[in-house]
Amino acid sequence: MNNNTLSTKFLGCDSDFASAGIVVFGAPYDGTTTFRPGTRFAPSTMRMDSIGIETYSPYFDADITDYSINDFGDLDLPFGAPLKALNMISHTAGHIFLNNKKPLMIGGEHLVSLPVIEQAAKKYPDLKIIHFDAHTDLREDYLGEALSHSSVIRRAWDILGDGKIWQFGIRSGTREEFYWSREGHTSMCLHNFATLDSAIAEIGSSPVYFTIDLDVLDPSNFPGTGTPEAGGVSFTELVKAILSISKLNIIGADIVELSPHYDHSGASTALACKVLREVIIAMSR
Amino acid sequence: MNNNTLSTKFLGCDSDFASAGIVVFGAPYDGTTTFRPGTRFAPSTMRMDSIGIETYSPYFDADITDYSINDFGDLDLPFGAPLKALNMISHTAGHIFLNNKKPLMIGGEHLVSLPVIEQAAKKYPDLKIIHFDAHTDLREDYLGEALSHSSVIRRAWDILGDGKIWQFGIRSGTREEFYWSREGHTSMCLHNFATLDSAIAEIGSSPVYFTIDLDVLDPSNFPGTGTPEAGGVSFTELVKAILSISKLNIIGADIVELSPHYDHSGASTALACKVLREVIIAMSR
Amino acid sequence: MNNNTLSTKFLGCDSDFASAGIVVFGAPYDGTTTFRPGTRFAPSTMRMDSIGIETYSPYFDADITDYSINDFGDLDLPFGAPLKALNMISHTAGHIFLNNKKPLMIGGEHLVSLPVIEQAAKKYPDLKIIHFDAHTDLREDYLGEALSHSSVIRRAWDILGDGKIWQFGIRSGTREEFYWSREGHTSMCLHNFATLDSAIAEIGSSPVYFTIDLDVLDPSNFPGTGTPEAGGVSFTELVKAILSISKLNIIGADIVELSPHYDHSGASTALACKVLREVIIAMSR
Amino acid sequence: MNNNTLSTKFLGCDSDFASAGIVVFGAPYDGTTTFRPGTRFAPSTMRMDSIGIETYSPYFDADITDYSINDFGDLDLPFGAPLKALNMISHTAGHIFLNNKKPLMIGGEHLVSLPVIEQAAKKYPDLKIIHFDAHTDLREDYLGEALSHSSVIRRAWDILGDGKIWQFGIRSGTREEFYWSREGHTSMCLHNFATLDSAIAEIGSSPVYFTIDLDVLDPSNFPGTGTPEAGGVSFTELVKAILSISKLNIIGADIVELSPHYDHSGASTALACKVLREVIIAMSR
Amino acid sequence: MNNNTLSTKFLGCDSDFASAGIVVFGAPYDGTTTFRPGTRFAPSTMRMDSIGIETYSPYFDADITDYSINDFGDLDLPFGAPLKALNMISHTAGHIFLNNKKPLMIGGEHLVSLPVIEQAAKKYPDLKIIHFDAHTDLREDYLGEALSHSSVIRRAWDILGDGKIWQFGIRSGTREEFYWSREGHTSMCLHNFATLDSAIAEIGSSPVYFTIDLDVLDPSNFPGTGTPEAGGVSFTELVKAILSISKLNIIGADIVELSPHYDHSGASTALACKVLREVIIAMSR
Amino acid sequence: MNNNTLSTKFLGCDSDFASAGIVVFGAPYDGTTTFRPGTRFAPSTMRMDSIGIETYSPYFDADITDYSINDFGDLDLPFGAPLKALNMISHTAGHIFLNNKKPLMIGGEHLVSLPVIEQAAKKYPDLKIIHFDAHTDLREDYLGEALSHSSVIRRAWDILGDGKIWQFGIRSGTREEFYWSREGHTSMCLHNFATLDSAIAEIGSSPVYFTIDLDVLDPSNFPGTGTPEAGGVSFTELVKAILSISKLNIIGADIVELSPHYDHSGASTALACKVLREVIIAMSR
Repeated sequence: MNNNTLSTKFLGCDSDFASAGIVVFGAPYDGTTTFRPGTRFAPSTMRMDSIGIETYSPYFDADITDYSINDFGDLDLPFGAPLKALNMISHTAGHIFLNNKKPLMIGGEHLVSLPVIEQAAKKYPDLKIIHFDAHTDLREDYLGEALSHSSVIRRAWDILGDGKIWQFGIRSGTREEFYWSREGHTSMCLHNFATLDSAIAEIGSSPVYFTIDLDVLDPSNFPGTGTPEAGGVSFTELVKAILSISKLNIIGADIVELSPHYDHSGASTALACKVLREVIIAMSR
Repeated sequence: MNNNTLSTKFLGCDSDFASAGIVVFGAPYDGTTTFRPGTRFAPSTMRMDSIGIETYSPYFDADITDYSINDFGDLDLPFGAPLKALNMISHTAGHIFLNNKKPLMIGGEHLVSLPVIEQAAKKYPDLKIIHFDAHTDLREDYLGEALSHSSVIRRAWDILGDGKIWQFGIRSGTREEFYWSREGHTSMCLHNFATLDSAIAEIGSSPVYFTIDLDVLDPSNFPGTGTPEAGGVSFTELVKAILSISKLNIIGADIVELSPHYDHSGASTALACKVLREVIIAMSR
Repeated sequence: MNNNTLSTKFLGCDSDFASAGIVVFGAPYDGTTTFRPGTRFAPSTMRMDSIGIETYSPYFDADITDYSINDFGDLDLPFGAPLKALNMISHTAGHIFLNNKKPLMIGGEHLVSLPVIEQAAKKYPDLKIIHFDAHTDLREDYLGEALSHSSVIRRAWDILGDGKIWQFGIRSGTREEFYWSREGHTSMCLHNFATLDSAIAEIGSSPVYFTIDLDVLDPSNFPGTGTPEAGGVSFTELVKAILSISKLNIIGADIVELSPHYDHSGASTALACKVLREVIIAMSR
Repeated sequence: MNNNTLSTKFLGCDSDFASAGIVVFGAPYDGTTTFRPGTRFAPSTMRMDSIGIETYSPYFDADITDYSINDFGDLDLPFGAPLKALNMISHTAGHIFLNNKKPLMIGGEHLVSLPVIEQAAKKYPDLKIIHFDAHTDLREDYLGEALSHSSVIRRAWDILGDGKIWQFGIRSGTREEFYWSREGHTSMCLHNFATLDSAIAEIGSSPVYFTIDLDVLDPSNFPGTGTPEAGGVSFTELVKAILSISKLNIIGADIVELSPHYDHSGASTALACKVLREVIIAMSR
Repeated sequence: MNNNTLSTKFLGCDSDFASAGIVVFGAPYDGTTTFRPGTRFAPSTMRMDSIGIETYSPYFDADITDYSINDFGDLDLPFGAPLKALNMISHTAGHIFLNNKKPLMIGGEHLVSLPVIEQAAKKYPDLKIIHFDAHTDLREDYLGEALSHSSVIRRAWDILGDGKIWQFGIRSGTREEFYWSREGHTSMCLHNFATLDSAIAEIGSSPVYFTIDLDVLDPSNFPGTGTPEAGGVSFTELVKAILSISKLNIIGADIVELSPHYDHSGASTALACKVLREVIIAMSR
Repeated sequence: MNNNTLSTKFLGCDSDFASAGIVVFGAPYDGTTTFRPGTRFAPSTMRMDSIGIETYSPYFDADITDYSINDFGDLDLPFGAPLKALNMISHTAGHIFLNNKKPLMIGGEHLVSLPVIEQAAKKYPDLKIIHFDAHTDLREDYLGEALSHSSVIRRAWDILGDGKIWQFGIRSGTREEFYWSREGHTSMCLHNFATLDSAIAEIGSSPVYFTIDLDVLDPSNFPGTGTPEAGGVSFTELVKAILSISKLNIIGADIVELSPHYDHSGASTALACKVLREVIIAMSR
């Protein structure tokens, strides 16, 4: 019988776990989001709408089906218990690294990146981070909470220390965050990717975790997010940056902060699916 | 490892085909819809949102997990080729009947009911139809096309003949359709289910195909449909009717005409999921 | 050549002015709306969406095409100049009455009823008014303005005096408005149509202007309006009331306060089209 | 100078804290919501849209400005830290009770009721609870978390014990929850308010905490909520129930689970404002 | 009497057929759309919203009212019967060409271009095509159907052969489609209009059919379409390209794939109206 | 007690009137809007959503809390009476100027700028105007009304005369308006800010009123407006222009034409809040 269950897997990610080089999984958690929640719907909406794009990337002249990718599904995370949720993500990321595969996580809010970064740093002591975002995410805490979407990169710095984190596209934060970065803690490129090439040269062959907060995009390109910040990059600029980053040794990645209900046109979800496709190919080459 | 792919199956429909008594499948086709299309999104949206309801029905005091239900997935139907699409549905329905299971199809537009009714009539020569709808669906043709969402019950009559079809909730059609019905071709109950009990008594133990066009509901309850027709029944009235119908020998059923994009609140999809739950239980007892 | 310009005329209203008994026209004005504007889009949206309903009414067992109805089009009204706008409406209504036809106006906000009532009262000195609404509309003024959507019935009372106005479905207003009515100025039936039959008996064969503010409907049936007031009547109750009113000598009517952009499902516009159909038939019998 | 800052206070709630009998405050927390979040926006959206309704209630023939009501503002609650959020609410409720005033809280998700109930039970050892809801909210825990929107009434039972809680309008839950209630732990009226009068008689002059989960309403009346459950009560039924309950000794209340972004028509928010008005009057008489 | 029927004609297109040089007509067909339908609403929505733009183009320093343009209305096309629909379009296009006028069709999905191209090729054997699109539209078939929105340019190639088709803005398709083009069948400019000037030079004075799939625009500019493809051109780039193309001998044109319901802001429809205005002027000079 | 009333003041504008250098106030009036109204909701929606942005501007490296800004609230303007509304605005602006403070008004439609410009011209006889807009706004009248959103700059010219008004970003108007400007009445820069630097040099230290119609932005950046005009500037270009303008002696300013209901993503409102922040800082340095 010919049958076809829609929505089961992201487009073209139908390898089994054992044979896959990259494992895609969803972390639909938005429990610390302060302004407008809804990123919990990103992984399942992206699966459903991924049938609207092609498997072939004219940017890379490569096809997602050229590689073995597993869609591991979504984690079932408790919203009122961030520590428990982060532990579950940590466990999954650890399992993927243990099997010498690369995790590619779909958020959820940005806080979900933290446990994956922790696991990556365990496996790769020389880990570097490339961080695309509109926001600095460098707060010491938010309303007294150290674990928050707006402090996730500060927490990553707690693990990695100075000189390991490159931030791009940043255009929003407190004065303290911007000044703290300038003290040498992170490398921050405001508004765009102007210094990306020199960062890539500097990083060389070190293992890199690549975290994309999709609100690095201008809201014109990506209105479907909780805190739209005007003045961002275009999709074309983002794809060019991913092309550049494909030269690096990416050992794990995530794309976070799609909140699909805030864009009824579906364009934000379709764009996120394309970014996922490009990141998969960038990590596979 | 603990993982969980969301959206794969309708809530609680995780039996395999072989052991299932009811086989749920999607027919995401809206190729002849004349006014506002979009019912093609109903099956996948219902799968995704079904996690928002419970498996237990307080109306029946029964739980969907008490029964063995298979979610067969969605058919991959070509939109510009209605005959080919209907053939694919017919093939699937035939396969289900052949294995002595009951099909429960999720539309799609109402035309998708036709091939299932054809297969049901082949297997059950004494077939009766119970039809819930706002519209008569009794046109001889629409713009010259005999196969149309607005002629589907007329086509069913072509197969079954007079006295086999009971229509409820009807409140829209041409004058000719209403008068044609009154000539004795179908039994039509306007606006509500007033004559349902007598129909049930008349039908007795005959095999019944039960087709629910969800626009039988008032648009206040169900705005997410292509041609909302004010003056319909409430969800409570619909559930009571399904409770009554559960006494019949239902050998197949469908629920059609949810167009989820037209109701951003998600209430229409949530309601459709509850109707699906009640119909599954009604067919299982 | 076979061609068909959509949206030109309301469904079935294609008679010329000379031969028509009823003249439908649009008064897309919402210049004094205080809360949420947008009723200016009602006439054109209703024309476009009227293709989604049938010309036949099963409630009346009559068809809109049985009668000669002219769609006169929309007036081009200046938003910042209410007096000028009202004068233009007055001129149009006078022209229709002069030709011994019945105006059926589509608002716009409720203030547009005033000039038509003025013209009706000129032609029919014994004029009575039947008023369906959620709101009393009996304010002496609003923020100092005597001409306001919330004072339109008070202005009609200025013309007609005590005992000529019957209000139904009312459930919102200031304490002063409710008490003023009880002093004998108008007959007010709260929440529903409970006293409609006795009003009809009292009115007898007097000429009646029938003004329907669609927010008399419960917002569940009709969310597409500027000030949704919970606790209203259902479409079914409204249609029954129109059936009763069809026994009266209706010499003019209007339906106002559809704000189509506030209901993306289109259900409010579809309902308004059905109400228009029923009112046309009620005025034609 | 004449100036007017919109949105500062709920309509007509402009008394200061010292002179007020009722203190309205917002608890914009939705951190444990499992399906669709967004109730955090309810208090501020209700303030802004409250200008669309009147201060006078024709149901009670009373005006909100007849009483002294304080709008205390919203609490600034951390989303990822439910215990801390609940403590802040508890602190506020305690402060209000200590000053011999009645709290009227606007949620937020239903979990926010728990700390107010705790404070109420401290002050009134003989406390009873009247609970309007679509959902049982009687789970022992949700995904292992004892503090969840779906276990809030179970937690209230932990405090009060058997025979103190009356539930109305319930139509969704697990089989275990329904059966657990029937063991005598709570009094549960399915679907509607059929047994409300006998409950009121039984409760007599005992102090009552009144918690309204607005999803007790049918989604046709109230689509703007996270988990719309078809088959609920109408606004008219709800207002009648509030009129009945006004005979009781209500010492505190809340209305929760409005998620305004899911209803673009604004009708859900407008309805919630009217419910708030009626509850204020019911508590003031 | 002063009256004005809104929505009857596109802004400024009020010449009669006989005197017009360009005939605008709507082909509201989306019967083979595979992902998200709704382009059927484009022509009528554009008519209604065209009052929001001006007749004067500062880009061309010309006014649409300087020319004689007829709005022929919309064809009444059967959705389940693509062949019949295409025949009706073919008949209309043939009629326009026969009268030595230029057709300017508003889709509908892209498949509607095919019959107009066929008629154009009959009248102009040396026909060239300029094709703006995000998608290659070069599939041999889609799910076995040769007539599909995603194969329309391949079907045009079947008629015209190699070297006659210039494609611009392309950024989505299967690997096979891109490679097939590179074999010399079409000239394809990825992502933008970089090679437009050389194409114009090459085409010279040959007759040109100009087909604009509006999804050539970036979804930031044009979210109101069925399959939004990030990475497209801006409106400003599109207008510059139309200015260049105005030097060519355009004998017919179309703009397709606006799906207005997917952009509630109306910006996509307003943009499409401006594109229509510019194309009218480009064809008239 | 710790409490926090949301939505009361724009982010960081909590100085009292006496100590403030800039006074922000809302003029929620859209009574002459001809196409799509709704700008009346801009001030209150901006207040509510301003919590989603930061007080720090990385563009200026300055923080809104570095300055003393008063939020004066919104004026309560009658919609059907433009003259009265304009008088109320005039009175407020005069009061602010009298106290030697700078008004920063949030519209509303563009007509609300007129009374502030009148008061500014009274105080500063050498007043110049910088005008950012998609539309010329130079009509002599609109449907016979001299006071209209589309004639506001023409009315300002009536006051100031030739050579005092610089317009930027213009791309829509009648041919007459463009030609009238070229006769030397205003300086008009089409599409962008190309000539801004020379204008700034020319203006020197003269007092400048700065009026920003936010539809100067491309609809991709700002869909939430009544008449979206493709082909506009980006947010980044707008911020750069504001940075340049901060060198001028700005004595008053406004930002108008946000219509928040037309952009459900909230991105337009968020952008307007950022523009407000940048203008506050530009006026404060």
